[in-house]
Amino acid sequence: MRTTYSHLARLGAFATAGVLAASPALAQDAAPAGVTPETAFVFNTFLFLVGGFLVMWMAAGFAMLEAGLVRSKNVSMQCVKNIALYSIAGLMFWVCGYSVMYTGVDGGFIGTFAPYAWDPVGGGEDTAALLDTGYSTASDWFFQMVFCATTASIVSGTLAERIKLWPFLIFVAILTGVLYPITGAWQWGGGWLAEMGFSDFAGSTLVHSVGGWAALTGAILLGARKGKYGDSGMVHPMPGSSMPLATLGTFILWLGWFGFNGGSQLAMGSLGDVADVSRIFANTNLAAAAGVVAAMILMQVLYKKIDITMALNGALAGLVAITAEPLNPSPLMAIIIGGIGGVIVVFAVPALDKMKIDDVVGAIPVHLLAGIWGTLAVPLTNGDANIVTQFIGVAAIGAFAVVTSGVIWFALKMTMGIRVSDEEEALGLDKTEIGVEAYPEFGQGSQRV
Amino acid sequence: MRTTYSHLARLGAFATAGVLAASPALAQDAAPAGVTPETAFVFNTFLFLVGGFLVMWMAAGFAMLEAGLVRSKNVSMQCVKNIALYSIAGLMFWVCGYSVMYTGVDGGFIGTFAPYAWDPVGGGEDTAALLDTGYSTASDWFFQMVFCATTASIVSGTLAERIKLWPFLIFVAILTGVLYPITGAWQWGGGWLAEMGFSDFAGSTLVHSVGGWAALTGAILLGARKGKYGDSGMVHPMPGSSMPLATLGTFILWLGWFGFNGGSQLAMGSLGDVADVSRIFANTNLAAAAGVVAAMILMQVLYKKIDITMALNGALAGLVAITAEPLNPSPLMAIIIGGIGGVIVVFAVPALDKMKIDDVVGAIPVHLLAGIWGTLAVPLTNGDANIVTQFIGVAAIGAFAVVTSGVIWFALKMTMGIRVSDEEEALGLDKTEIGVEAYPEFGQGSQRV
Amino acid sequence: MRTTYSHLARLGAFATAGVLAASPALAQDAAPAGVTPETAFVFNTFLFLVGGFLVMWMAAGFAMLEAGLVRSKNVSMQCVKNIALYSIAGLMFWVCGYSVMYTGVDGGFIGTFAPYAWDPVGGGEDTAALLDTGYSTASDWFFQMVFCATTASIVSGTLAERIKLWPFLIFVAILTGVLYPITGAWQWGGGWLAEMGFSDFAGSTLVHSVGGWAALTGAILLGARKGKYGDSGMVHPMPGSSMPLATLGTFILWLGWFGFNGGSQLAMGSLGDVADVSRIFANTNLAAAAGVVAAMILMQVLYKKIDITMALNGALAGLVAITAEPLNPSPLMAIIIGGIGGVIVVFAVPALDKMKIDDVVGAIPVHLLAGIWGTLAVPLTNGDANIVTQFIGVAAIGAFAVVTSGVIWFALKMTMGIRVSDEEEALGLDKTEIGVEAYPEFGQGSQRV
Repeated sequence: MRTTYSHLARLGAFATAGVLAASPALAQDAAPAGVTPETAFVFNTFLFLVGGFLVMWMAAGFAMLEAGLVRSKNVSMQCVKNIALYSIAGLMFWVCGYSVMYTGVDGGFIGTFAPYAWDPVGGGEDTAALLDTGYSTASDWFFQMVFCATTASIVSGTLAERIKLWPFLIFVAILTGVLYPITGAWQWGGGWLAEMGFSDFAGSTLVHSVGGWAALTGAILLGARKGKYGDSGMVHPMPGSSMPLATLGTFILWLGWFGFNGGSQLAMGSLGDVADVSRIFANTNLAAAAGVVAAMILMQVLYKKIDITMALNGALAGLVAITAEPLNPSPLMAIIIGGIGGVIVVFAVPALDKMKIDDVVGAIPVHLLAGIWGTLAVPLTNGDANIVTQFIGVAAIGAFAVVTSGVIWFALKMTMGIRVSDEEEALGLDKTEIGVEAYPEFGQGSQRV
Repeated sequence: MRTTYSHLARLGAFATAGVLAASPALAQDAAPAGVTPETAFVFNTFLFLVGGFLVMWMAAGFAMLEAGLVRSKNVSMQCVKNIALYSIAGLMFWVCGYSVMYTGVDGGFIGTFAPYAWDPVGGGEDTAALLDTGYSTASDWFFQMVFCATTASIVSGTLAERIKLWPFLIFVAILTGVLYPITGAWQWGGGWLAEMGFSDFAGSTLVHSVGGWAALTGAILLGARKGKYGDSGMVHPMPGSSMPLATLGTFILWLGWFGFNGGSQLAMGSLGDVADVSRIFANTNLAAAAGVVAAMILMQVLYKKIDITMALNGALAGLVAITAEPLNPSPLMAIIIGGIGGVIVVFAVPALDKMKIDDVVGAIPVHLLAGIWGTLAVPLTNGDANIVTQFIGVAAIGAFAVVTSGVIWFALKMTMGIRVSDEEEALGLDKTEIGVEAYPEFGQGSQRV
Repeated sequence: MRTTYSHLARLGAFATAGVLAASPALAQDAAPAGVTPETAFVFNTFLFLVGGFLVMWMAAGFAMLEAGLVRSKNVSMQCVKNIALYSIAGLMFWVCGYSVMYTGVDGGFIGTFAPYAWDPVGGGEDTAALLDTGYSTASDWFFQMVFCATTASIVSGTLAERIKLWPFLIFVAILTGVLYPITGAWQWGGGWLAEMGFSDFAGSTLVHSVGGWAALTGAILLGARKGKYGDSGMVHPMPGSSMPLATLGTFILWLGWFGFNGGSQLAMGSLGDVADVSRIFANTNLAAAAGVVAAMILMQVLYKKIDITMALNGALAGLVAITAEPLNPSPLMAIIIGGIGGVIVVFAVPALDKMKIDDVVGAIPVHLLAGIWGTLAVPLTNGDANIVTQFIGVAAIGAFAVVTSGVIWFALKMTMGIRVSDEEEALGLDKTEIGVEAYPEFGQGSQRV
């Protein structure tokens, strides 16, 4: 029964008699109150674990989104890239990523290069130190690792259908082991941007823009898919192979984002912290919903049809936009911030095509542009943030990401090459790089069965 | 190591020495016991958040179920409808839904029309009031919102393949902002039905039947798909495009239902509450399993083949049936209640076809009929419930849902029209309303590649 | 804001002032500390519920993996088998499975045959007994039940595309009601293997090898698919119908494994326990990642292409390998253990084909061989384990599983028959046993539309 009043009655009961029944003497003398440090430790750690597995699940979301938005001849490749990049990110963030980002940054630019080690079995002897930290270090590593992997996922979709597998994976290793951790160190590691007062709650800039910049740089160096752009400014549509998979991917990402933003509160072992996690859940959902509705209405007005990919990317843009500050906004502000994200997507996707930047899944509008928007919008709802500092943060991280990822893409291009041959591109990467077609019995595949 | 005895030994250890090690003096004088109100607050709030994200995930389940059960020419449309309805429900439940359902109902028929506001950042100053409530208001809003969205999801599948997009979404806005909240107010908002002693733990009637009635009313006003029913009583099967997606959707719904029913305990900050949540998980799983097995055996006996859609809908019917009372039943009763749900589906699907009511995904048998069954079965296991009151609740909510949704469907039909043209229906809604085919390279799509 | 230092500052604040604000007198006299038994009870129970729903979700993972790896004419069948086996496992583990495994084993070989009953509503009167147990019995049942179901899922994929539905389901009922519980009783039920000191943290042997042995025995008795193996040692590839679904299934399994291994800590109501759950999450992820990367590199070296199914099975083999001991390994050891799992898969898949054992999805390399490897590797990182005892456990459980499942498969073969006719196999099981094609509009299906 969940009638409100009976519910309140029950809560009332345990708040007074029920809880203390086992210890009546104590109840009279000194009622225990609050959350003990050990209990808070369990809560905080569990938030990292639950938030972490939700964000891990986003790796599947990107895989499904991209599998749905590429043509069937490149679907297996996209699946391999996504499970490989998640794996590589996980390894590299242990090899050096976490330490580069979090160890000894101390107001500076970079931490130390070293593998990470977690608490001993059973938490070890020094309980007091653990309680001071407030959570288990392995849970923190897990939670931060999945953010790192998300950054790599963002790059994957933009460059689909023409990039070689191994150069891409080498880029991922550097991105997740070094590049992402360095800009991460500037802010979440307590580096110079944090000291300056930059504000990016869950990573509109640190995660999404960084991934978006790396994707943009790669897309420029890689070039568009053959036949995508005609001479006379014509854009040849190359529709994705499966809209339900793209939809599934979007729902997975939406679900995972509760862990992404909610877990970034970093604590729930107090009334205030868990209330904040709750606000974040609610605001995150409103922003995504507003992104969908705004993109759909705009599509209807402009084009009289609702391209499903715009509705899906509208949700994602709303989510990215609210990520820089999901806690402070009122519900209405969350709706506005997310809705503008949806609007950005509808205008930016054709604009990129005009610039002949071939972003297969729309990751640049969603993660880069909506990420910038969300970061610059923080001062609207957070009095501690400052628009100038926000702009400096966006620009500094953007410059670093563009320059470093540009150098690496260029080096890969000059050495291994990053692009498959025209013939391989025409055949599809599944046949040439993976050797297994995604749908051997359907469509193109069925011709040969 | 999880050998039972070593496990017990470990639990025993921390229940005595371990826990109190940090405070030996206290251990001797007055052992802390019970769950403090602050700790309970965190537990309760976190139950809402975890339960809420599981139910949010059900939106993806409906999307996949429906994408799998419609023909490929209407799959993109179904995906758009599902992400849009979840978004609209989320917005409307903030705009007025929550307040209509929960604010100031006080034994009556309806709350107030007002946007909802959640606790201030950090929970605000009035900690005592928060502790009295027992959970964060934003977590409660989030949890209740996803239930509201579920109601709209139910409607979507029945009306697939011939309804226009925007009239459907307008209906969703009214359903989630006004209709669902009103009948919700009668019971969970503490209205007249609750005062009368109606019992519907997690919403067999409040969620599933309401969605089912709205779907039934819409199906009647909309009419069947062209060619579905021949003149001589023949039923032309229109098989769904992807059974694995339908299966995925069913598994997602099953998973989400642990949040749906388990979270409806509304508290887990005490030994009794969390034990009850556990009973609910176990009973919910048994009922769904029984629904599958009952439907499969019956299909084998009646038709000598196991139509997969019956097995899937058997699971869902078992879940809907146990939703009205997942706590009190013994395991055996949970199996019986769920199994009868599965039986209902096997008989009701062809019965609806005989009545020429075209329910594309079987939502009416699953959500409406199994929902009624589950609600009427409550007195079998819950001594506080009364069959007459249960019947009154089912009938009153049904009458309200049929009349109001009928009026709205009718008004939409008279103004915008709710049905696409015959030509559009034949072409498929993906081409005419969405402009993007779901599988452009396969099946029908591949003809044009 | 999640800058490290501000985070620490915040945690520091609540560890001292914040938490105790509501009770200043107590703070001065005797600070409450530790986790009370009631609070630990809630934590432990909730770990079972969250871990349990994650493992339940693995049932969907197996369904998608198998749906993707069989040919399209058998996909509906595979979906039906997976939802049915999960349902049957859930029922049988209540009917007798749990009691056979956990009740009164007491150093012996088997528990009692009886249905299970969970705690009364509200936990019942005997709170002290509940607190002694440390968790709700229904949550424990739910958690153990999903492990039992996993064992059955493993069998399903190997035998795909030629086994009859009902004999398979009868085997599942016996496996989940009797066979798995018996070997489970030997170890987790506190039987003779546990007394001997065998170590299998989360079930590399108890779950994965048992399922693998049953699959192997069935595969031998059932024979290979028609046309799979030519006379001259040729292997005819029969590629799966959907690589994105196989990828989705793998990601689902990976996600579920956090519950599988993490939940097997069986407690999180203390600092040490939750720190251990965190180590397990992190190690589990590293092992899976290493399995992917090892399999991919080896494939590239050996074959110059990355068969996607090897990358996916590499992840699963890494997960299975770490399951016997996910807590003690250092990060580097977790990587090595998981990586060797990936290597095993790359060599074992073609080796099985040489032996003409037709394992449709690769379950035998993944679950049986990597499971054995993981179990034998326990002494490398766990000083309490002994290689001889580990070998005895692997051999004893293997012998029992092979003999009992062999007898049952043989009995089924002699009575009902376990294999469809050649004609039915050629037509596909969807048409002959299910009556509903998985993709009626695509590939083979589209010929008839």
